[in-house]
Amino acid sequence: MDLNNVPTSGNSWLLRKVLRDEWGFAGFVVSDAFAIGNLVIQGHARDKRDAALRSLKAGLNMDMASGSYLESLADLVNDGSLSMAQIDEMVRPILTIKVRMGLFEHPYVDETLLDKVAAKPEHRQAARLTAQRSMVLLRNEGGLLPLAKNLKNVAVIGPLADSMEATEGSWLAFGHKPAAVTVLQGIRAKLPNAKISYAPGPQIRRDFASFFEDLGLVEKKPVQPPEEAEQAFQVAVKTARGADLVVAVLGENADMAGEAASRGSIDLPGRQEELLKTVCALGKPVVLVLLNGRPLSINWASQNVPAILEAWEPGTEGGNAVADILFGDANPGGKLPVCFPRHGSHAPLYYARTLSHQPEGSPMYRSRYWDSPATPLYPFGFGLSYTTFAITNLKVAESKIKIGQAVVVSADVTNTGKVAGDEVVQLYIHQKWGTDSRPAHELKGFSRITLQPGETKTVSFKLGADALSYWSTNAGKVIQDAAEFDIWVGSDSLATLHADLQVVE
Amino acid sequence: MDLNNVPTSGNSWLLRKVLRDEWGFAGFVVSDAFAIGNLVIQGHARDKRDAALRSLKAGLNMDMASGSYLESLADLVNDGSLSMAQIDEMVRPILTIKVRMGLFEHPYVDETLLDKVAAKPEHRQAARLTAQRSMVLLRNEGGLLPLAKNLKNVAVIGPLADSMEATEGSWLAFGHKPAAVTVLQGIRAKLPNAKISYAPGPQIRRDFASFFEDLGLVEKKPVQPPEEAEQAFQVAVKTARGADLVVAVLGENADMAGEAASRGSIDLPGRQEELLKTVCALGKPVVLVLLNGRPLSINWASQNVPAILEAWEPGTEGGNAVADILFGDANPGGKLPVCFPRHGSHAPLYYARTLSHQPEGSPMYRSRYWDSPATPLYPFGFGLSYTTFAITNLKVAESKIKIGQAVVVSADVTNTGKVAGDEVVQLYIHQKWGTDSRPAHELKGFSRITLQPGETKTVSFKLGADALSYWSTNAGKVIQDAAEFDIWVGSDSLATLHADLQVVE
Repeated sequence: MDLNNVPTSGNSWLLRKVLRDEWGFAGFVVSDAFAIGNLVIQGHARDKRDAALRSLKAGLNMDMASGSYLESLADLVNDGSLSMAQIDEMVRPILTIKVRMGLFEHPYVDETLLDKVAAKPEHRQAARLTAQRSMVLLRNEGGLLPLAKNLKNVAVIGPLADSMEATEGSWLAFGHKPAAVTVLQGIRAKLPNAKISYAPGPQIRRDFASFFEDLGLVEKKPVQPPEEAEQAFQVAVKTARGADLVVAVLGENADMAGEAASRGSIDLPGRQEELLKTVCALGKPVVLVLLNGRPLSINWASQNVPAILEAWEPGTEGGNAVADILFGDANPGGKLPVCFPRHGSHAPLYYARTLSHQPEGSPMYRSRYWDSPATPLYPFGFGLSYTTFAITNLKVAESKIKIGQAVVVSADVTNTGKVAGDEVVQLYIHQKWGTDSRPAHELKGFSRITLQPGETKTVSFKLGADALSYWSTNAGKVIQDAAEFDIWVGSDSLATLHADLQVVE
Repeated sequence: MDLNNVPTSGNSWLLRKVLRDEWGFAGFVVSDAFAIGNLVIQGHARDKRDAALRSLKAGLNMDMASGSYLESLADLVNDGSLSMAQIDEMVRPILTIKVRMGLFEHPYVDETLLDKVAAKPEHRQAARLTAQRSMVLLRNEGGLLPLAKNLKNVAVIGPLADSMEATEGSWLAFGHKPAAVTVLQGIRAKLPNAKISYAPGPQIRRDFASFFEDLGLVEKKPVQPPEEAEQAFQVAVKTARGADLVVAVLGENADMAGEAASRGSIDLPGRQEELLKTVCALGKPVVLVLLNGRPLSINWASQNVPAILEAWEPGTEGGNAVADILFGDANPGGKLPVCFPRHGSHAPLYYARTLSHQPEGSPMYRSRYWDSPATPLYPFGFGLSYTTFAITNLKVAESKIKIGQAVVVSADVTNTGKVAGDEVVQLYIHQKWGTDSRPAHELKGFSRITLQPGETKTVSFKLGADALSYWSTNAGKVIQDAAEFDIWVGSDSLATLHADLQVVE
């Protein structure tokens, strides 16, 4: 990847001037896999030898996987292109860390340790809790969730419903045997006496082989013949028709995101949306559980599926965590760490953007687009709960502070619903003018709190000089401006509870 | 728009250091409309007065439409924030140009002049020729085009087939009455004795009012009721069914591109693709004529419609020019000045990109995407003709030159088909390594030549030091590297006719 036309792996300004001179970094820098060799592909280095020379001189300590250092450094020293002092300078931080890690006393890890540790009940429990807390409830029309535990007949459908790979996520190669609890297993464990029928629907798969398949680390799955896929579609619809409630587990396979796995579209892959529409047309209550590693374009679902739980890639206890949330043993409190675009062509879309025109709603320039709103489908910081919260009484301790001073921002958060739940209270600022342009919103604090029904807590944020400063292109350094600020505290990046802050010289 | 976090309208580095000091520009700089006032919206200026102060100090001479200078400059001089010398410095280049234009002798234009001049036959003819030459033939399976002039029964369908606005293009407000020859009119004029039936199909329109509608400069069109739209769809299909050949004129309305008219999608708006599919299913030969101001995502058409002519927004004689090409009175020779992405989410997609990974086809990282090729649907520089060309005998006069020297690159171009035609011969380079990363392809020359059947011409390009130099971030100036270069000459940016060039110290 280039930074201002210079690959980061050969970027002396970045690796020496900024990282070591300005930031005082004393550790070592390792390239991304093959990145030094890739300087040739990037049109930067002549060959791997030249790449090794450029990267080492730029201050890159360790070559991952390209072999450029291994093949060329000795020669480069022998022919005088590099000195031993330059080699020592790069090697010393690596050896320092190795010594501190004890690698010269115990160079080899116990390879069974990971499984032993991960399998411990307290660690499975931690994985389950982490997964619960990471999930984001995107929609819950009519309070369909949480589901009653006396349901008798549930259909669990979709290609990811019983996929250990998709539940674990995108990094599961190198001989590791997936061991995740799937959503199907989680629901069966939660309702041991109910009829839980299952149908995966048509297979979803990459058109091109994955990184891990290419490396021979995972087995290539056979392609499902079209007639078999069609039959699987019909079986899934039939399975849904026979149930009182449908849980559709859709999204992306483990090998569709992550390493070397970009997509040209963020629609649901394969026939999943078609399956969802067909099942919704049956008139049963439908819960959509998404397993995916990036935002997907789910416009139709966002208007037509009553309950949507974004479960991401929830890991070994993912299926249990999904069942905990669906059946109310856990109350979702996660928030989106990213905007959900309406279409792939809306990306890049981020909440902390600077504005170039009048914002949304201005009569002249109503929108970035004339065919759809410019706002995200779901904004950064968004997430619902089974309870409701009121955030009130926003206070900025001092309405005017001097540059360098800190100020406390606080608000009262009340659980106005009927069950306990978590709210992630978020603090956003907008510097109205500055030496540089300033973003429309910047997240400067958040706090996840648990509230019993009717309970109120006061949440406080310290807004210090560091939070009010920024790296200025105009000034060429980190600065703090005297300016006015909008302050918002709320449940997501569209928070409207507002106060003013003035920073003066 | 920000440049490195500083709005260009308040960017002293850009307007003074680069533009005047380095490039020696002596003219004046005018803001885009409202851009000075927008410094407030951009989070850069405190208010319009502050915006005026920042822009004037940054070296912006003239304020278009925001009123910031008009309202504030006198005050800013009165209170000492600006000196009269600073005002004079900004005003002088404006007055210089006005004097040189004679505006003090003849301050007012003859407003009837434009129509009088534009209406002259030689100017209409120039418009027709320009339109012919700008159009790009994207597909012509089985040589469907050019069409025979003895066709008896042609259907011309689509919402843009008889739209003077779409034919003229996106800047036609301010009381101007569109006077373009539409495609329907052009075809009727070309085949005066044939039956030319016409049906527009369903209306296409913006969801939000356009800039010009907002300003009250154009009339708002009534929304077509759904039942009327459905009827229009059926009438268009029926019209197509009754003809021997169908010309579908689809794309974007004049108000869908241009001023304040971004789209969130690059699919064909409305039901146009559905209409195209329905008409193609009738089994008639179908010609797709596109009127649009940006690349559209036409994957289905690119595989299923035998002939596709990209006519852009072809202006007052656009319909005649389309008919000239469809019926062989002109042979298309235009080339794409942009890549056509497969989907909106493929953008930004440009031929002159730098590579970060192995290119297409590498076994490990086959593609930027696993669900579609990373290549454009149609590459930069692409365009077909009714004849064929062979480009051979690529010669680089010297295989090794010194920095600062020029070299001549030549190739022979032969019309290998049966009709006269134009080829735009293109020269691309790739600098294999450098002080900075260098793009995979750079267009460094093109030449449009007309060849009779069987005729051969030699095309030469002078590749000088300017073409082999670039602005280097690493060096902080324009430099020329000693390096090796790939040289390609061909019909588009995927040209494979290759030679090597070495530049040495």
